[in-house]
Amino acid sequence: MTGVILETINSPSDLRKLPVSDLDELVAEVRHYIVDTLATHPGHLASSLGTVELTVALHYVFNTPDDKIVFDVGHQAYSHKIITGRRDQFPTIRTYGGLSGFPKMDESEYDAFGTGHSSTSISAVLGMATASKLQGQNSRQHIAVIGDGSMTGGEAFEALNNAGDSKANVLVILNDNGISIDKSVGGLSRYLTKISSSSRYNNLKERMWMQAGGDERDTKMKSFFSRLLSSVKKLFMPKSANLFEALGFRYFGPIDGHNTEELVDVLQHLKKINGPRLLHIVTKKGKGMPLAERNPIAYHAPGKFDAETGKRIAGVSPEAQPLKYQDVFGHTIIELAEQNQRIVGITPAMPTGCSLNMMMEKMPHRAFDVGIAEQHAVTFSAGLAAQGMVPFCNIYSSFMQRAFDQVVHDVALQRLPVVICLDRAGLVGDDGPTHHGVFDLACLRPVPNLTICAPMNDHELRHMMYTASKGNSGSWVIRYPRGLSVNADWQCPMQEIAIGKGRTIREPESATTAVLTIGHIGNLALQAVERLKSEENIEVGLYDMRFVKPIDTELLVRIASRYKRIVTIEDGVIEGGFGSAVLEQVGDRIPVVMMGVPDRFIPHGTIPQLQKECGLDVDSIMAAARG
Amino acid sequence: MTGVILETINSPSDLRKLPVSDLDELVAEVRHYIVDTLATHPGHLASSLGTVELTVALHYVFNTPDDKIVFDVGHQAYSHKIITGRRDQFPTIRTYGGLSGFPKMDESEYDAFGTGHSSTSISAVLGMATASKLQGQNSRQHIAVIGDGSMTGGEAFEALNNAGDSKANVLVILNDNGISIDKSVGGLSRYLTKISSSSRYNNLKERMWMQAGGDERDTKMKSFFSRLLSSVKKLFMPKSANLFEALGFRYFGPIDGHNTEELVDVLQHLKKINGPRLLHIVTKKGKGMPLAERNPIAYHAPGKFDAETGKRIAGVSPEAQPLKYQDVFGHTIIELAEQNQRIVGITPAMPTGCSLNMMMEKMPHRAFDVGIAEQHAVTFSAGLAAQGMVPFCNIYSSFMQRAFDQVVHDVALQRLPVVICLDRAGLVGDDGPTHHGVFDLACLRPVPNLTICAPMNDHELRHMMYTASKGNSGSWVIRYPRGLSVNADWQCPMQEIAIGKGRTIREPESATTAVLTIGHIGNLALQAVERLKSEENIEVGLYDMRFVKPIDTELLVRIASRYKRIVTIEDGVIEGGFGSAVLEQVGDRIPVVMMGVPDRFIPHGTIPQLQKECGLDVDSIMAAARG
Repeated sequence: MTGVILETINSPSDLRKLPVSDLDELVAEVRHYIVDTLATHPGHLASSLGTVELTVALHYVFNTPDDKIVFDVGHQAYSHKIITGRRDQFPTIRTYGGLSGFPKMDESEYDAFGTGHSSTSISAVLGMATASKLQGQNSRQHIAVIGDGSMTGGEAFEALNNAGDSKANVLVILNDNGISIDKSVGGLSRYLTKISSSSRYNNLKERMWMQAGGDERDTKMKSFFSRLLSSVKKLFMPKSANLFEALGFRYFGPIDGHNTEELVDVLQHLKKINGPRLLHIVTKKGKGMPLAERNPIAYHAPGKFDAETGKRIAGVSPEAQPLKYQDVFGHTIIELAEQNQRIVGITPAMPTGCSLNMMMEKMPHRAFDVGIAEQHAVTFSAGLAAQGMVPFCNIYSSFMQRAFDQVVHDVALQRLPVVICLDRAGLVGDDGPTHHGVFDLACLRPVPNLTICAPMNDHELRHMMYTASKGNSGSWVIRYPRGLSVNADWQCPMQEIAIGKGRTIREPESATTAVLTIGHIGNLALQAVERLKSEENIEVGLYDMRFVKPIDTELLVRIASRYKRIVTIEDGVIEGGFGSAVLEQVGDRIPVVMMGVPDRFIPHGTIPQLQKECGLDVDSIMAAARG
Repeated sequence: MTGVILETINSPSDLRKLPVSDLDELVAEVRHYIVDTLATHPGHLASSLGTVELTVALHYVFNTPDDKIVFDVGHQAYSHKIITGRRDQFPTIRTYGGLSGFPKMDESEYDAFGTGHSSTSISAVLGMATASKLQGQNSRQHIAVIGDGSMTGGEAFEALNNAGDSKANVLVILNDNGISIDKSVGGLSRYLTKISSSSRYNNLKERMWMQAGGDERDTKMKSFFSRLLSSVKKLFMPKSANLFEALGFRYFGPIDGHNTEELVDVLQHLKKINGPRLLHIVTKKGKGMPLAERNPIAYHAPGKFDAETGKRIAGVSPEAQPLKYQDVFGHTIIELAEQNQRIVGITPAMPTGCSLNMMMEKMPHRAFDVGIAEQHAVTFSAGLAAQGMVPFCNIYSSFMQRAFDQVVHDVALQRLPVVICLDRAGLVGDDGPTHHGVFDLACLRPVPNLTICAPMNDHELRHMMYTASKGNSGSWVIRYPRGLSVNADWQCPMQEIAIGKGRTIREPESATTAVLTIGHIGNLALQAVERLKSEENIEVGLYDMRFVKPIDTELLVRIASRYKRIVTIEDGVIEGGFGSAVLEQVGDRIPVVMMGVPDRFIPHGTIPQLQKECGLDVDSIMAAARG
């Protein structure tokens, strides 16, 4: 299944023994192995298919692991894992206890730096290159592989700006496929397309001559032309030859990223040059799998599919079932926007992931994909709000960590009516520690002026969005998880809810323990409480607090006087989170047991596996509520 | 004192009644008024002096407040305040209850968007321009005034990338003075210098002709030349004319930012053009005040000075007095680095502010100013650490909010030995709410793997830096305040301290209340406790907990069993902070009163004024400790 050459590659040193002429065959085998494996072990398919030639060429030319390669984001690093000693473990990718879906320093010495969030690679390799220089390792190479999408993230630019002014031994490979998870947007993307579609630099002289109507035989003119060209060069080149050259990089390319031999050849040349260099390669996301090439968005992480045909295997879908939370958001914002002209939608490069794509299709002028640019997304939303709009800015919880300052400084401080919707809040499953959205409640709770809430189900999400959409109650954060919501009849009429007021779910007379939850995990608590009643006849109170800020102090005081103990449950970090808020209010009156994500980074796995690991499964909740 | 023309300017509409020929006089009067006022009312001098012509020209040409101007950071907005109705209040700037040092929406309708942290302005005006378009306000202008330093911040690039691909009515004024607070660094700065020092675009044709040795009389050649030039344009312009054009902006300039008439003229032209435009102006920071022009770093915020001569008035300096914390840091990192080759220093554009400039001078290869780029600074540090170095990355507490994700994702998750030093932690005084470093403890405490501490004085800072510098105990955060430390003999021998262990300062037998503090504010608590003893004969225990994470649970348990109540004191937000950590540990055993910054944004003023407002002054601590 792994192919005859791949079978022999247990590390890059094996790879480097091959003749160049064998590399194309190896590339085909690696690609085949990725497709075969991911057909039944879902993962990030299309990105990895697009970089097989590059990865093979890099490990062939460079002396890894002494030379350092950092894969930005890391979706594209599967072939890297396969040829750096992890071939046989590859089918465990993204499963509990198995390989991580991202590069990870703990996992292999070939993973020079862990990634997951975008736009960090150039900063990291610049740090490494600087260290190497200080350590006298002047020939060591430091390579960042970064997509054109990630290149729009501000940190990448900060790093280019810094690196371009250094003499550090940094090679940036710009993997230009015109797409991140969704289609790349913005001026940079347009610019890269222009470069790639125009002729190469070395054709310049000929083209200029021809376009000017030059005559081969006119030698006087030709000599004048040469002098002129050199003066043109002097005028233009130093200041403007290219965006990357403007920042101090030597720019090479664009070249075809699917031509292994050319890649090897170019990389071998680049290896001999010092200082900051950028190689622009053009690749096709999903390369080698026709369906993925045609629809790289769907095949970014396609789930299971048929290895032969590439056709995706749809899950069983019963007639009426709850929608994903993201789709409840996607439909609801359109409903709201149809009634309220002030509402607009913003996403930093996640339209499909957060379902804002629906609004972008239906109301293209009122829904904006601003690129991989969380900071900008939030301040842009604040700017919209400052001019009377009510922007819903949808960001994955863990990516919002990128925009924390903007939430404080541009939104909350100015009390602007921005509604920040945090998708993928809580444990996200197989993407692991970089993607768990577990810090949001604890980090945002200290920020003044914010209203922070989390819906227990789809209906609640709609009520919260509706209430926030009025635009008269300042800045909101609504956080909800990855995956399915609760009700098949999700499309309830929307109601304005009282800000800062919780819901009483069960309040039995005889109960001595009250379970207080925030968000979707309340449904697990409900199961636990129901089982305690039906299996053990133990009565427990249950409250969906809805808001972390302002927290319902009135309700808390009532609960504190009614029960003997409180158990708080949240799918976020315990320290400083929702439970801590309850404790701050009533900790002096009643014992509070706080359940949540413990103080360590949680690995990847299925959400139930991770809930169990965190003590957030039904059994653990039952045990805690039992008292 | 304000000048005869300035006296008549109560709003920009008054300004717009003046003939252009009067503007130079007005500029001189505004500049004079700024110098005169700041001589005795300290503020941000040099930035504002550099933008008087621009500000006058902007309000003259554009129809503010309907047209929107956003000043990036806002240090340069003093003349804007003066000519938009706040002339007479100007002497109250940065004082408690007076004008803010930054633009602030609450303060004036002319402050279209609040600023303070860098690189937000383009995002904000793009948001506004988008809103205007949706509202059918197609002629409204939206102007971002941004320095070349701020332009290196990633968010500015994210916004350029997004705006360049839009048709939004955005005008970016790049105020290029080669300096932010310290000298601008990086590829962009170098690039801008090149543009400015080379000829202007409109001289291009002549220069090319001359350089190529062209002859005026040769008409055939000249005609060929014209055709050639147009083909050159076609080849170069669309893809590479200029960094900003590459991103989709129309670029104009560079022009002299101190020529008011030219500015008015150019702005009037630019007003008629739609879409994203960038005007590059060249200015001199400190313009009009020779000493400030010569030393714009010292005159960024010079304190008091002689209005006539410009000479700075030094404070009284007794023979031996404590150093500022930042200087203790600056000296100590050099001492450490001299003994330990692994140590390097990093600052995002604050070398003078955090005193890393000392190391940059003494060990230029081991101390790095990476530009206004907090995100990059942290990941760059992580990259250094991944290759065996021990980087001390010094960032102002409130600016670290920009790098929260990088601290989580690149440093803590990978347990890399990066030492993040947060200067300006706690209340910072007259810079106000955007600059108070009050969220750090609450936000970072939930992050696994971090060691978080705060020194009560200079000696403690040195011990903490020394202990962290071993590089064998993972990722550290050391936070300390603006201003003077405590001991005149700050240069004590450095000791390794026990991680996660607090210090007992006073433990009287009879005390029933224990005061637990973190960091420098412990000194106020010490005063309070001493006064309670001497004035009222009340004994109170006092503990400097040193570490917020890991917190000294052993000590806490001992305290909980020894006393009847605990008072926690921190100069950060209460919710989720240090007090909350104490509560989480022993809240079930002993009542905990938490003192800290309350849940609202704290205005500007002197630190004592603000401490009083927050209930963190000695009297308030005495009241709380009295019980």
